[in-house]
Amino acid sequence: MRILSLYLATSLDGKIVGRDDDHGWLFHDQDYGFSEFIADVDTLVMGRKTYEQALAFSADWPFTDKRSIVFTRNNELQPIEQVEVTRDDPVTVVRGLKGETGGKIWLFGGAEFAKPLLDAGLIDELVLAIHPVVLGSGRPLFSEHPERWFELAGVESFPTGLVSLTYRYNPARRRPPQK
Amino acid sequence: MRILSLYLATSLDGKIVGRDDDHGWLFHDQDYGFSEFIADVDTLVMGRKTYEQALAFSADWPFTDKRSIVFTRNNELQPIEQVEVTRDDPVTVVRGLKGETGGKIWLFGGAEFAKPLLDAGLIDELVLAIHPVVLGSGRPLFSEHPERWFELAGVESFPTGLVSLTYRYNPARRRPPQK
Repeated sequence: MRILSLYLATSLDGKIVGRDDDHGWLFHDQDYGFSEFIADVDTLVMGRKTYEQALAFSADWPFTDKRSIVFTRNNELQPIEQVEVTRDDPVTVVRGLKGETGGKIWLFGGAEFAKPLLDAGLIDELVLAIHPVVLGSGRPLFSEHPERWFELAGVESFPTGLVSLTYRYNPARRRPPQK
Repeated sequence: MRILSLYLATSLDGKIVGRDDDHGWLFHDQDYGFSEFIADVDTLVMGRKTYEQALAFSADWPFTDKRSIVFTRNNELQPIEQVEVTRDDPVTVVRGLKGETGGKIWLFGGAEFAKPLLDAGLIDELVLAIHPVVLGSGRPLFSEHPERWFELAGVESFPTGLVSLTYRYNPARRRPPQK
């Protein structure tokens, strides 16, 4: 079974984007394990806003060697050649993709798109690149969800203060015994 | 100068308490570095809610060998013998405490009480014991704040999946150079 992975940069206060689409707090001095991560990915899934933000950053689609699927309820969206656009339900489509053979599926973002996938228990891996800053405003990764337990699968820290934490979803894990 | 340290357990989604004062997700199987931390502390500062919650957990005040100061705007609060109660401004009082000689000052909580201290740049150390769970509801540690940059000072992970991250506030640190 292919795994669906949510790999995101966050602040200490759990924001993935600062106020007014602010990305100026993100570290770009090194790769922080991203090229290793992306090497295992063959498919990207994302919401429309993430897609449009990625295009605003770079006129050329940066992931031409991957299958890229944009989910939208907007009939007007004119995709570029390298991406597929679907108006189908993300949970149904992603469940189908996970049943196929292939590499890792990267949940490229954003939070609104990730929510139903997390709530359906479809996110297998969570990679958080935690930046050493309290942004104090912006859009959080998580909102209202059912409780979900994970296993810690990796910890890496860098001299800049970035900590990369990798978690695997464990649907069988329960709360700890109480004293 | 004494340092003010905020040491708190959080979920992956940055909650410090679950819905309806739920603490059932917290790990109690081991100490997670707490006894080492508390050994350096000689003073606790906290808001009224945290104080009342701590008393609800244990009829005996657990920190009798420390100075414990409860901040409240409530004139009705009847403190127990081992704590001091003040209606003074937390920022002023804590700034004064930091100017005295002594050990570490522990900001025992909660989020509402911590906010003006963080915003005034008075929190020197942040220790987050991150539990491997998305709670999905509850009270977050952070709310609206000015941007604050930290240095990573320690990373410890445990077989249960708890990751303890220690940060030091660096008022001189600025955003990274952009590409």
